[in-house]
Amino acid sequence: MIAENVKENKYKISKLAEMTNSEVKGDQEIVVDNACGVAESINSSVTFADQKEYLSEALKSKAAVIVSSYKICEEMESDLKAKKTFLLTDHPRRVYAKIADILTPRPYENGKISKRAVIDPSCQLGKGLSIHPGVVIAENVKIGDNSIIAPGVIIGPDVEIDENCLLHPGVIIERDTIIKNHVIIQSGAVIGSDGFGFATDKSGHHKIPQQGNVIIESEVEIGANVTIDRGASGPTIIKKGTKLDNLIQIGHNVEVGEESLLVAQSGIAGSTKLGRRVTLGGQAGVVGHINLADNTIAAARAMVTSRTNEGDFISGAPAQLHRDALKEQAYLRRLPKYIERIKELEKRLSELEK
Amino acid sequence: MIAENVKENKYKISKLAEMTNSEVKGDQEIVVDNACGVAESINSSVTFADQKEYLSEALKSKAAVIVSSYKICEEMESDLKAKKTFLLTDHPRRVYAKIADILTPRPYENGKISKRAVIDPSCQLGKGLSIHPGVVIAENVKIGDNSIIAPGVIIGPDVEIDENCLLHPGVIIERDTIIKNHVIIQSGAVIGSDGFGFATDKSGHHKIPQQGNVIIESEVEIGANVTIDRGASGPTIIKKGTKLDNLIQIGHNVEVGEESLLVAQSGIAGSTKLGRRVTLGGQAGVVGHINLADNTIAAARAMVTSRTNEGDFISGAPAQLHRDALKEQAYLRRLPKYIERIKELEKRLSELEK
Amino acid sequence: MIAENVKENKYKISKLAEMTNSEVKGDQEIVVDNACGVAESINSSVTFADQKEYLSEALKSKAAVIVSSYKICEEMESDLKAKKTFLLTDHPRRVYAKIADILTPRPYENGKISKRAVIDPSCQLGKGLSIHPGVVIAENVKIGDNSIIAPGVIIGPDVEIDENCLLHPGVIIERDTIIKNHVIIQSGAVIGSDGFGFATDKSGHHKIPQQGNVIIESEVEIGANVTIDRGASGPTIIKKGTKLDNLIQIGHNVEVGEESLLVAQSGIAGSTKLGRRVTLGGQAGVVGHINLADNTIAAARAMVTSRTNEGDFISGAPAQLHRDALKEQAYLRRLPKYIERIKELEKRLSELEK
Repeated sequence: MIAENVKENKYKISKLAEMTNSEVKGDQEIVVDNACGVAESINSSVTFADQKEYLSEALKSKAAVIVSSYKICEEMESDLKAKKTFLLTDHPRRVYAKIADILTPRPYENGKISKRAVIDPSCQLGKGLSIHPGVVIAENVKIGDNSIIAPGVIIGPDVEIDENCLLHPGVIIERDTIIKNHVIIQSGAVIGSDGFGFATDKSGHHKIPQQGNVIIESEVEIGANVTIDRGASGPTIIKKGTKLDNLIQIGHNVEVGEESLLVAQSGIAGSTKLGRRVTLGGQAGVVGHINLADNTIAAARAMVTSRTNEGDFISGAPAQLHRDALKEQAYLRRLPKYIERIKELEKRLSELEK
Repeated sequence: MIAENVKENKYKISKLAEMTNSEVKGDQEIVVDNACGVAESINSSVTFADQKEYLSEALKSKAAVIVSSYKICEEMESDLKAKKTFLLTDHPRRVYAKIADILTPRPYENGKISKRAVIDPSCQLGKGLSIHPGVVIAENVKIGDNSIIAPGVIIGPDVEIDENCLLHPGVIIERDTIIKNHVIIQSGAVIGSDGFGFATDKSGHHKIPQQGNVIIESEVEIGANVTIDRGASGPTIIKKGTKLDNLIQIGHNVEVGEESLLVAQSGIAGSTKLGRRVTLGGQAGVVGHINLADNTIAAARAMVTSRTNEGDFISGAPAQLHRDALKEQAYLRRLPKYIERIKELEKRLSELEK
Repeated sequence: MIAENVKENKYKISKLAEMTNSEVKGDQEIVVDNACGVAESINSSVTFADQKEYLSEALKSKAAVIVSSYKICEEMESDLKAKKTFLLTDHPRRVYAKIADILTPRPYENGKISKRAVIDPSCQLGKGLSIHPGVVIAENVKIGDNSIIAPGVIIGPDVEIDENCLLHPGVIIERDTIIKNHVIIQSGAVIGSDGFGFATDKSGHHKIPQQGNVIIESEVEIGANVTIDRGASGPTIIKKGTKLDNLIQIGHNVEVGEESLLVAQSGIAGSTKLGRRVTLGGQAGVVGHINLADNTIAAARAMVTSRTNEGDFISGAPAQLHRDALKEQAYLRRLPKYIERIKELEKRLSELEK
């Protein structure tokens, strides 16, 4: 059943080499239809070994082709090289991921617009769209070519979705959201909910209208049941190539820099800006109105309360440099011993004082 | 695009003054259609300056009208006063929020009941409703006047929704829930899921039917993808004027007091009661079966394990009074220094003992 | 309103005794239609008292029948025994839960397949199904007898759902998922979202196709807005009888052992394996690629970073044995006192050194 699902696209390995700027060493005519790990390989699979240690397993597997590096291949004994066809490159992980992407059919792609979707006549729809039953699309929405709108997706008014996007079932896109090309949004994510903004006085909390929007740049992936609030005014932005895991909260007017990685259940409070290639571990939290510099790494469960410098690795609550957090923890674990030493000192001193 | 969305309602400023019990100083005839921050103001905007420091920015902005206080206006130089029209009150934040609410059109309000919604004939529907495509409403549901049910909302049997409510796309209201007037629920929130109740013995965990319901009082706002469990028996209650941010978990039979603020990703375990105006910071957690007194503030990530007194400000895990938590943290950070002093003492004592 | 909802099934108590292998002591002819706590009992209710202390309340209640144990009943005075009808067993909690389950009608059960559901003709549907409006079921889905698919549920291609399952509104089941019998899934849960897998190099994060699936074994319950990722290759598995609370994240290729209990907002990173009867407290987190042994208990907010032994009770961040965590905490709270003692020692030593 799973196997069927991943077997729809067939390519000659020479064609894939051309598409990924890599080189076939072995049988140019092999046809593959599937990319997967060593353990799941079948005889039409491409698998990969980007480190020497993984090579022997890959050679023993059923896979037809192994993606590897020139360097690893050079160091290999020649009788082993003859056993399999290789696809060689200096960037085996990237090439493998691209091939896997080519060979794996996109879910929900059928090129049809269902009659059981409700689409406002004012919408501008591109070519090659797949729009499924149960979808509701409000007025003035634009959707670019080859995008896939899975069942039960709701799209509010004045939304723009670019080309080659994939919205999984039950995704909700609120009004005015802008989604660039090649974006993937997993099921149940909510993009453009109102931010948490109230004017409080003695009579209560008075809602401040949230008049901004959300911009999702190209090649972003957003996990299941994530929530991204619209800006209070101006946009909340997720920049190019950034990946969000599941159940993450992004507050209003947050900016997440390019190629960042946010692990599940992390959260970012309003108006905070993350630089490029920032990593937030699982369940990490970042307070509002601060800047995290490029390449900051916040460990799982870090509670980030102040700005960082480029490349800082921080952990703990409140977060500090990880090496300091480790020291603190080590001291804490040795505390009982030191307390014994205090008691010992007191005894010896009492002896002397007699 | 965004601008269009916030420009549908036009009012003379004298009319808004009447509606908010405030006073126009300047041109009574100005027509405004938009309320926003200083930076986004256009020449038909109302903006606000509730503190003296904000006044010069507001005066320089494009806004037609500034909401401010009598006190600030009195202290201002008279040539500045002449530059803009002011709306004066003793409660500028509240008046501004009310005006913003008046000028900002409610999303999804079109006064129509879609033929592509599925509504059981036993339902009692009020006047001026907006019910969108993809909505499913089960038997015996009552909905009050002027409420908005956005696309893809599911409402279970025997639910009551009062007047002027706004349910965003994909909200799920389970059976027997009661929602009072002026409630806003953001997308993907689930109200009335079963609580986590099982009778465990050697043969497994046996589900205890969750027979209670959820009551959401008036002027409550609930964030995206929040989950609120129905009571095991009796209700789970969110009281009047309370605001919940995104991805919050409310366990069965919890009571959240009036005008409380719960920040994103916080959670409250079963049967706990929060008093009036309690604040939970982001990712805070509260154990079950305890009471938090009125005006308790639990900082972000606080893990609250015991009852509080009125006005307590607590933090940490397990949470303690914030001043104690700060002290503890300070001691911890100085620990290495004190350990050096212990070693020093040991040396000196050894010298003496010779 | 609630009362109506729980009153649809009527049974003679002698029949319920037969069904639960227990014994009636008193009136065999009593007809009951409702199981609930002592406080909510009406005169057709079954309630329970599995400990001696609860007996007097149960005797005073309106309930027609009390489920209790032989032992408790023996120790009771005989005039009290005469006051009520008892249902006796050695396992009162289990018997009560089973009776409550029998008497409580399943929500959304109407035995009808709505014309406003969209069901691919290739699907294999069992008998006695309830499939509601707004449901979308893709190709090659199998659904077993007596399962309930509530409004707005989306089921992707090649999914198998066994008998007697209950999918609440808005649940999303992605392709290839396998769900065994008697599974309950609360609203908004997402089963089978893509795991968080990317091959990173200088040019960005390249998506690794997630080719596995999710298997939910029998008698599992999954909470509202939970997310369970499909395996990267091979399955993510939730084993028999395990219960998940709301807003939980389960990473790709995780295995959760039989009869485990995961409390709200907890999360498990990829490839981690939990043994049998493991408990994760609320907001707990477990890192990837580790094993937690059978009967491990991780307290609320525990951050579990390493493997455990059978029956370990752990807490804190990073988690350690709870008794050690408590000691550490106690030392930390006494730290100021010990620092005073260091200062005192320094003074006394200075005196001696003079």
